[in-house]
Amino acid sequence: MTSRAVVLLSGGLDSAVTLAIASRGRGLAASCLSFDYGQRHLHELACAARVASSLGAESHRVLRLDPSIVAGSALTGGADVPKDRDLESEGIPSTYVPARNTIFLAHALAEAERVGAESIFIGANAVDYSGYPDCRPDFLEAFEFMANLATKAAVEGRVRFRIEAPLLHLTKAEIVMRGAGLGVDFGLTSSCYDPSDLGAACGACDSCRLRARGFEEAGLVDPVAR
Amino acid sequence: MTSRAVVLLSGGLDSAVTLAIASRGRGLAASCLSFDYGQRHLHELACAARVASSLGAESHRVLRLDPSIVAGSALTGGADVPKDRDLESEGIPSTYVPARNTIFLAHALAEAERVGAESIFIGANAVDYSGYPDCRPDFLEAFEFMANLATKAAVEGRVRFRIEAPLLHLTKAEIVMRGAGLGVDFGLTSSCYDPSDLGAACGACDSCRLRARGFEEAGLVDPVAR
Repeated sequence: MTSRAVVLLSGGLDSAVTLAIASRGRGLAASCLSFDYGQRHLHELACAARVASSLGAESHRVLRLDPSIVAGSALTGGADVPKDRDLESEGIPSTYVPARNTIFLAHALAEAERVGAESIFIGANAVDYSGYPDCRPDFLEAFEFMANLATKAAVEGRVRFRIEAPLLHLTKAEIVMRGAGLGVDFGLTSSCYDPSDLGAACGACDSCRLRARGFEEAGLVDPVAR
Repeated sequence: MTSRAVVLLSGGLDSAVTLAIASRGRGLAASCLSFDYGQRHLHELACAARVASSLGAESHRVLRLDPSIVAGSALTGGADVPKDRDLESEGIPSTYVPARNTIFLAHALAEAERVGAESIFIGANAVDYSGYPDCRPDFLEAFEFMANLATKAAVEGRVRFRIEAPLLHLTKAEIVMRGAGLGVDFGLTSSCYDPSDLGAACGACDSCRLRARGFEEAGLVDPVAR
């Protein structure tokens, strides 16, 4: 029987490569999960659906979350998305959303228990963009520990849930190369925090610039037009 | 300045007493949080609002969650609510919802960071109804540990989040007496897993029977009519 995994899929580059690692790299049956919380870039949910389909995911579900959970963040129009910021600057960016990965992983844990998955894949990265506390290894380990006390399946000994973050220690260039090696169609992904109404990337937000630098360092051309 | 707490409020007896302990007992400004996930007993959200108001909560918000998170549970019509079950039986009841308290606490953590609260109160109880894994002390401790790695406010050292479960080791009779001592109007609360359309308690589900036994052992009369 094919083992199963829940994969958090945002429609961006990192989560697409994460899905490719789970499905193509490890041969897992992937149950993808995206969230609709009224984000500025609903465009990314359409990207997530195309990415899931192109990488042979077994299923893709979009869960609705209360829009207020991201209130005030630069990601939802509560503040301006910072542009041309120093990417090496310290501190937590204004795109931080309180407890976002905790909320996402909590839903992924419920989904994992429901579909009988052992692992939950998340495209968290602690190298290029280390400002987010809930992208760090010690957070992910603490979540995994908690998950195995939180659920019926784990407490009854039928499963030991694992949080898998295969991109955690990769640079953006390494992520791009890993994805290219697994045949990810980067043209289907969307990374921009502030895309136009038609989904075109702004090229100036942190996410666009990290992506551009990653492709450049990997020596590859980004198929996503600006 | 009054310290602030987030209180998870279901509209039931336990969370009403929990709120009373936070607000009247400890003098905290309580930001109450309830969830609308299409549960069978929407009636309880109306109860939660009345309880919050009667106990002087500072605010009460209802967050919408995707109804699918409770799919298949006896609490939402996915299966029959068990009636006249042996309350002392071992095992996890069919009213279990995968990762429910993890999801609730994740949202409460986000709210706590947003409103500047240090503590999150939850009416979890490990005595009378110990079947739920996510009502046990070791789960709550693990969540607290994780919460302090997950959030900007904690990582920057501005706060140390605490999960407070003041009912954890109380019997139902002790909870009733504690609530009575704090002037909780039990008539505003609703505990039934399977109420009538008008909100009347069934009297036969685990929750109704534990409540009845609690009032009986406390030597008090339950003002909620059946």
